[in-house]
Amino acid sequence: MSSLDALKSRLYDLNALGSAVAIMDWDQQTYMPRGGADARGEHVGRLSRMHHELLTADETRNLLEKAKTEATPESDDAALLRVVGRELDLATKFPSSLVEEKSKLSALAHEEWVKARATNDFKSFAPILERMFEIAKQEADFLGYTDHVYDALLDQYEEGSNTADAQAMYDAIRGPQVELVKQIQELPETDDSWLYGDWDILAQSRFTEEIVQAIGFDFERGRQDTAPHPFCSGWSVGDIRLTTRYKDYLGSAIFGSLHEAGHGMYEQGSPRAWDRTPLAGGVSYGLHESQSRTWENIVGRSRAFWQHFLPHLQRAFPQIAGKDLDTFYKAINKVKPSLIRVEADELTYNLHTMVRFEIECDVLTGALAVKDIPEVWNAKYTDYLGVTPPNDSEGCLQDVHWSMGSIGYFPTYSMGNLLSYQIWNALERDIPNTQDLMAAGNFKPMLEWLQANVYSQGKKHKPKDLIVQVTGKPMEATDYLQGLGAKYREVYGL
Amino acid sequence: MSSLDALKSRLYDLNALGSAVAIMDWDQQTYMPRGGADARGEHVGRLSRMHHELLTADETRNLLEKAKTEATPESDDAALLRVVGRELDLATKFPSSLVEEKSKLSALAHEEWVKARATNDFKSFAPILERMFEIAKQEADFLGYTDHVYDALLDQYEEGSNTADAQAMYDAIRGPQVELVKQIQELPETDDSWLYGDWDILAQSRFTEEIVQAIGFDFERGRQDTAPHPFCSGWSVGDIRLTTRYKDYLGSAIFGSLHEAGHGMYEQGSPRAWDRTPLAGGVSYGLHESQSRTWENIVGRSRAFWQHFLPHLQRAFPQIAGKDLDTFYKAINKVKPSLIRVEADELTYNLHTMVRFEIECDVLTGALAVKDIPEVWNAKYTDYLGVTPPNDSEGCLQDVHWSMGSIGYFPTYSMGNLLSYQIWNALERDIPNTQDLMAAGNFKPMLEWLQANVYSQGKKHKPKDLIVQVTGKPMEATDYLQGLGAKYREVYGL
Repeated sequence: MSSLDALKSRLYDLNALGSAVAIMDWDQQTYMPRGGADARGEHVGRLSRMHHELLTADETRNLLEKAKTEATPESDDAALLRVVGRELDLATKFPSSLVEEKSKLSALAHEEWVKARATNDFKSFAPILERMFEIAKQEADFLGYTDHVYDALLDQYEEGSNTADAQAMYDAIRGPQVELVKQIQELPETDDSWLYGDWDILAQSRFTEEIVQAIGFDFERGRQDTAPHPFCSGWSVGDIRLTTRYKDYLGSAIFGSLHEAGHGMYEQGSPRAWDRTPLAGGVSYGLHESQSRTWENIVGRSRAFWQHFLPHLQRAFPQIAGKDLDTFYKAINKVKPSLIRVEADELTYNLHTMVRFEIECDVLTGALAVKDIPEVWNAKYTDYLGVTPPNDSEGCLQDVHWSMGSIGYFPTYSMGNLLSYQIWNALERDIPNTQDLMAAGNFKPMLEWLQANVYSQGKKHKPKDLIVQVTGKPMEATDYLQGLGAKYREVYGL
Repeated sequence: MSSLDALKSRLYDLNALGSAVAIMDWDQQTYMPRGGADARGEHVGRLSRMHHELLTADETRNLLEKAKTEATPESDDAALLRVVGRELDLATKFPSSLVEEKSKLSALAHEEWVKARATNDFKSFAPILERMFEIAKQEADFLGYTDHVYDALLDQYEEGSNTADAQAMYDAIRGPQVELVKQIQELPETDDSWLYGDWDILAQSRFTEEIVQAIGFDFERGRQDTAPHPFCSGWSVGDIRLTTRYKDYLGSAIFGSLHEAGHGMYEQGSPRAWDRTPLAGGVSYGLHESQSRTWENIVGRSRAFWQHFLPHLQRAFPQIAGKDLDTFYKAINKVKPSLIRVEADELTYNLHTMVRFEIECDVLTGALAVKDIPEVWNAKYTDYLGVTPPNDSEGCLQDVHWSMGSIGYFPTYSMGNLLSYQIWNALERDIPNTQDLMAAGNFKPMLEWLQANVYSQGKKHKPKDLIVQVTGKPMEATDYLQGLGAKYREVYGL
């Protein structure tokens, strides 16, 4: 057997272990009874350790080095080896003492964060958060960087992107977005109260499955279930799982489902030959998010989409039968700056991630002390969003991520927003009549274009290369700002 | 670290791998989309191989031998080492060439069996089945036996039981059961046609969850889903999964759920300290089946049970509101000899497994040629059940087991039937008023007794020792024949 084949066999074993963890995680968030939590933690912990041991075994590195001499340059195999090499580097750069400390601190930090948020007590959480940022700095040192400590952290989630990219992105959008939000704030608030109610869950389930299937999610190779925090998971191009949730806001299930289906169709679009290998799946957090945002926002919050689906929705929910398309369209695109990121509308979302990015950078460079985060947080919310958190629970304590030590990836959400418009514009150069197609309930040409240009590429190209290949230029804010600006000026008659 | 602790850590790793396979299997039978089958097969295959490699590694045997010198005699640890030793023996006795051949033959045999059953063509299946029986004989040789080739095969499923036990069992029940069935056959057929219909699935789901919870299955530590072929699975004392199915016969879901809940409560009853170790769970196929049959038949098909639950059932299904307890009780205990084992009633079930046992023994000893199975099968059905299969699809081709090479375990079903009555009689010596308690909807004293005497014992004792410990005697047919005879003579007024 060649080293390449031996390596591939090992990769399939790694995939089996990783898939076991993924399905256990999916089950935990969808069906697992409460009593299963202890054993689930043990099982996932042990399988993750086996995965790590097999990945970082000397033999894996040996096989990888030998396989490099066997793979044809520019081939899929060569791309596979590059991706595996990066995974192996990321898995081996941290000393196990650091990994262990972070793991223990995360467990403790999560508990303390829950308490601190419940009692609105940032001070009690601050020392642990300080230690978590120190660990992030150490991680950056082990990963290595040339310009900015944040570069190393961001690169884990978005290969090749650095702090300068993120800063340029936020510099470009900060002014126009803040300004547009301010203008909208001066107008009368859109009434969307009629989108809140006690909606039948079965009807929501059926309607969301209908639209998700209509845009192209393949239910022969996937399904949708319910989870408290919606997510998309999967362990094969033939088995991709969406989740959604049913709340008093009718849009929660609808846009949640479309969002996760965007992730899901990206995953379903990998070539079958790459199934269960590291080449399958989305290439980066930003690119992945660009597709969830495309189907949620550019498609799902368009007038054309609802020209087709509003009558269906009104059949499922006769309570809103009296609303015309224009009223409905304005309601689902209501802009209202709020305190909580996960509830933010399309227009203000980036302002939330910007706050976190700026604070993370300043804490990492030492420009900001952890104890001063609440003050800076509140000032930035006031500046960018025009709203001031009344307490830290609704302010800097709202997100779970810092307690987990997930520092460095908030910009990928905004990159996803920018890329969604940039890629969609490229798509519209080939398919100029997207609005007509959507109004007719025909999403196939757009899915096929995305499938051919993005989804079928898996992780073969580096994210930045793929962006240029697909859109003809590196990521930039123009398409996004123009698209979003035009849309919301029209919605609000500005 | 002691060798005992090192071994335990390895056992927890093995449990994690085994649990991954179990949850993948559960998912495959409940929720997996069709497209997930290929990857699921690969994942399960690889994880099973990793499990086998880790279990049969030299280091496992070394640790086991050293640990034996460390464990206190008669302790839980000593029992654990005994159970692990048996698992290790079973996993290492077959040469890998035989395992591989059987695995390949099974895949082929399954395909051929499906085809043969569809076209009613035993002849085309016979050569493969012949090879499968030869492999079973080889397996018996590798396992070792003194008296009968079947001893080795049966012992895999029912530790310590041998062919003589199974023969004695069938010899004891053959006469009385065949005679009773004949007597009933001469009476007018019970009308249970009103138990067939188009029953609301949600109502079936709610009702079965109600009764399963009422008898003591803990939904904080388990759940019930739907599967084409109901089963019980689990990977922790805190996470036991039942499945049921909804058919036109209302009893399918009800008795299926009670049956699986019997398995489930046995699993939920293991001591928490043994969770995720080989000491947890049911001790043998026969003992496990005894508990599913107890809750399905002795409890679930009793008049007392329905004295309590019939009004509930009639609220859920107003279509049967007019039926009185006596009519209902007689209908759910209708005896009608039929061709298909999995649809057999309580009274005739053993006659089905007896046919298989007798045929398996005769083929293994050479007394019967595989090509002659259909003739013998049909003769035995005519003799024991008074019905003759019109073709082999409804005869010797009906079960999947032989195609998988699962030869040697049909007697455990009948052992379960015998043991259910024998254990229940022991229970009634301590709790004489079981019928009053059930009629009042109170199942707690019985569950607590079974929990204390059987479920909490896990695999600590050998099956035969546990039976004597619980009932004061080895397994025998008296309690079963008396209990079943009395019941059905009363039902049919004989």
